[in-house]
Amino acid sequence: MADGAEMMFRTALAAGVDVCFANPGTTEMAMVAALDRVPGIRPVLGLFEGVCSGACHGYARVADRPALGLYHLGPGYVNALANLHNARRSFTPVVNLVGDQASWHLPYDAPLSSDTTKLATWVGWHRHVNSASRLASDTAAAIHAATDGAGGPATLVIPADTTWDDAPPEIPEVGFGSRRTVPADRVMEAAAALRSGDSALIVGGPLVTAEMAADMARIAAATGCRPLRYRAATNELGLGRHFIPDIPYFPEAAARATAGVRTAVLLTEGEPVTFFGYPDIPSTTLPADCRRLQLAGVADDIARCLSDLADAVGAGPATPPPAPDPLPAATGPLDIMSLGRVLAAEMPENAVLVQDGITSAAGFLTMTDRAAPFRMIQAMGGAIGAGLPTALGAAIAAPDRRVMCLQSDGSAMYTIQALWSMAREGVDVTVIMANNHRYNILQMELHRAGIDQPGPNALALTELSNPDLDFCSLARGMGVPASRATTAEELTEAVARANATPGPTLVEAIL
Amino acid sequence: MADGAEMMFRTALAAGVDVCFANPGTTEMAMVAALDRVPGIRPVLGLFEGVCSGACHGYARVADRPALGLYHLGPGYVNALANLHNARRSFTPVVNLVGDQASWHLPYDAPLSSDTTKLATWVGWHRHVNSASRLASDTAAAIHAATDGAGGPATLVIPADTTWDDAPPEIPEVGFGSRRTVPADRVMEAAAALRSGDSALIVGGPLVTAEMAADMARIAAATGCRPLRYRAATNELGLGRHFIPDIPYFPEAAARATAGVRTAVLLTEGEPVTFFGYPDIPSTTLPADCRRLQLAGVADDIARCLSDLADAVGAGPATPPPAPDPLPAATGPLDIMSLGRVLAAEMPENAVLVQDGITSAAGFLTMTDRAAPFRMIQAMGGAIGAGLPTALGAAIAAPDRRVMCLQSDGSAMYTIQALWSMAREGVDVTVIMANNHRYNILQMELHRAGIDQPGPNALALTELSNPDLDFCSLARGMGVPASRATTAEELTEAVARANATPGPTLVEAIL
Repeated sequence: MADGAEMMFRTALAAGVDVCFANPGTTEMAMVAALDRVPGIRPVLGLFEGVCSGACHGYARVADRPALGLYHLGPGYVNALANLHNARRSFTPVVNLVGDQASWHLPYDAPLSSDTTKLATWVGWHRHVNSASRLASDTAAAIHAATDGAGGPATLVIPADTTWDDAPPEIPEVGFGSRRTVPADRVMEAAAALRSGDSALIVGGPLVTAEMAADMARIAAATGCRPLRYRAATNELGLGRHFIPDIPYFPEAAARATAGVRTAVLLTEGEPVTFFGYPDIPSTTLPADCRRLQLAGVADDIARCLSDLADAVGAGPATPPPAPDPLPAATGPLDIMSLGRVLAAEMPENAVLVQDGITSAAGFLTMTDRAAPFRMIQAMGGAIGAGLPTALGAAIAAPDRRVMCLQSDGSAMYTIQALWSMAREGVDVTVIMANNHRYNILQMELHRAGIDQPGPNALALTELSNPDLDFCSLARGMGVPASRATTAEELTEAVARANATPGPTLVEAIL
Repeated sequence: MADGAEMMFRTALAAGVDVCFANPGTTEMAMVAALDRVPGIRPVLGLFEGVCSGACHGYARVADRPALGLYHLGPGYVNALANLHNARRSFTPVVNLVGDQASWHLPYDAPLSSDTTKLATWVGWHRHVNSASRLASDTAAAIHAATDGAGGPATLVIPADTTWDDAPPEIPEVGFGSRRTVPADRVMEAAAALRSGDSALIVGGPLVTAEMAADMARIAAATGCRPLRYRAATNELGLGRHFIPDIPYFPEAAARATAGVRTAVLLTEGEPVTFFGYPDIPSTTLPADCRRLQLAGVADDIARCLSDLADAVGAGPATPPPAPDPLPAATGPLDIMSLGRVLAAEMPENAVLVQDGITSAAGFLTMTDRAAPFRMIQAMGGAIGAGLPTALGAAIAAPDRRVMCLQSDGSAMYTIQALWSMAREGVDVTVIMANNHRYNILQMELHRAGIDQPGPNALALTELSNPDLDFCSLARGMGVPASRATTAEELTEAVARANATPGPTLVEAIL
């Protein structure tokens, strides 16, 4: 006889789910003990729950399978939810194991008790485990739910007694879900629409590979359509890959990107909408009279659909993109353009880039085609604090690749504890901390709201100065070596050194 | 004509609510701008939402009135919920202002959109604001709800358009709620019960003042009852005040504290229950055959009820407690006892102590009657990460008092960003960071679960070493001066120096 916790982990392992980002408490002690009886599950401690949930996101975006996130009751799990929101909006499979009060203790409303299931409903699929004998099959159900169709977070609420009670030692059938295939007649309809002139092909979802970008370029060449990305959580980019522009963040620029489009073929979640609502600006950015054709959604196999669509429009063979002009070397003071050039020049071959640079990334994003081939992960949910945890998880998933993390200062502070886990796990991460001493995006939004001269209170709530954050000191406090760069030359040298050094390094780039 | 945001703040100010702990985003820009048009509201920026919500808790526990917490949409507000859970379990009034997508933008399900109201229902009273003209009266309703009866968090979900749309310039009637008075006949019934022999008087709730402790001592002297605290969120303690023991944390010790009690008179929330459920241990800790008499709940005026009860039992006048033996000076290596002695010896007169020491506080809690008079704040909810934010808020509320913060290392890392706000605001806080390099409470719980020799995975999830956290470096990274102590003599010297230095200081105590 085993206990419920042991059968839970054995079931996960049978599915190939073998990493557990954990921040346990008392009600998870049977789970923690079981990890020593189930060899093959790697536990990674996070000092804050949002580190674990962000790491689950980064892990799955590289490994293409879920990790486990292990949390303590409602008031612990709630700290994981911001990055689970990002996972949900990125269609990232994640399996959450949330210990809860023992079933017979819950009615006593002890201090840490709460409605954990209500929190789980906020972010996706969930199930309350009713007995130790059901824990293994519920784990199998959660793994399937996280990976089926669109994919996303799946949460088990696990009363402590179901983890320590005896459970039958049988592992249930367990496996990943799948995406749907788009029927051929709909592909043919879309092919005709693309050929109708003034058309756009808008692709997003969990992953746009280099092959998918190449198919988009082939389809564009055959039909004259405008290829665009929209809410693509993961992208294969860099030299030798077709550069497909993103629909921009601000609504005016987004509208310009699709101005004149009369037919939009969509392979993503819905049609493009603005991130926020602004007075007198439409919430959708396609032209009002544009025909929308939703060819595939995020629960569909978008890669296969693109390939079928290329065939349907009679696209020619894939050709390499035109070689971009070489980038001039970055020199002098750091700004978003020189920062971008350094990152493009120093990107290691086959790196993973976690892009959480907010406004600081704007330069680099114009020159991704100049960097060595890399995979870029972004959090589509917009919840702040994704970057460092995502980089941690990506690095656990890809021990043979360098993970670059372009991280803004404001966002970094929500989940700064991730640095400690990077040091403990010795992962090969180069963090470029873009420190502009402000919430720059908010100052831009204040300006949009008509506040050209913010008063002292508005400044107090958008400046990160007085005192300045010293990210080198923060990193060293968590065991991560760090240095500071104030010029492009210094940044180039520091990033090159970091990339050549095993383990994590933080380079603070003062903008 | 004003806008909704301006009328919201004017209404708060009319109630005497004049501090706003904020972590705004784009949907709060009209609120941020309005703060420059409503002089008298002090904005305090937190770099993480849990800093703001914990600060609201600490502020109200000292100021006896709510502060405002300002958050960005569901995925930002969700980060505030752990410390709002603590506020809820401590009956602490808090008013949350959560910007949401503009009402007409919400249906488009933009990336940051979510069911914000669902999150608010998890933690207490809430209201969705339907128009700019309602925002002021809804603010008044939230202030009343937060302060009425038991008190707790009250949340307004505020669509961005209701903050920037025009609103009538009238301030509605606004004021705090009240607690109920316990009827005299119930007090008389309890008086008789206390006189029946083998009785206990169990008092808790938001605040147990020195006067309430003195009344408990008077009642005990008159009736022979056993006076006990249970879940008292704030306590006035120290020299010259009656020491009333707490019902201990672990169930066996809690049962011993009430063994033999045949009648329990309760002035708190329900009867004592264990923090967690353990196999074969009852969830309630009073003897099974003990008669329970719930005299007052947390929505009642417990202070007045105690005073009435003292009259009803014919208690004599208040007498000072017996003088405790003097504490020997702490010397040699630091452990929880010598740490406690240093804190007791160095406590400034009339200080506020935020106690988030978890296991490290166990020594000090046996000697609180040896320290100069102080007010102790604890988070009754058990959600980790309360200490540093609570100290920030307490210090904003009490600029003329020194705030001491006894903080454990593990818990500190959940909301470490609070140090930056302490530095920015220049608050007089002495943080004693008790660094034992582990989640000690979890290692104790593992032991309770029968794991006497934790395996490598259980150790990996409960040790905070490899690398060790360097809290001095972390503090300096956020602008807080810091030093390290490894002996009682060093700690005494460092705490004395910190207490004599304006602004925040962190002293890392290596256990």
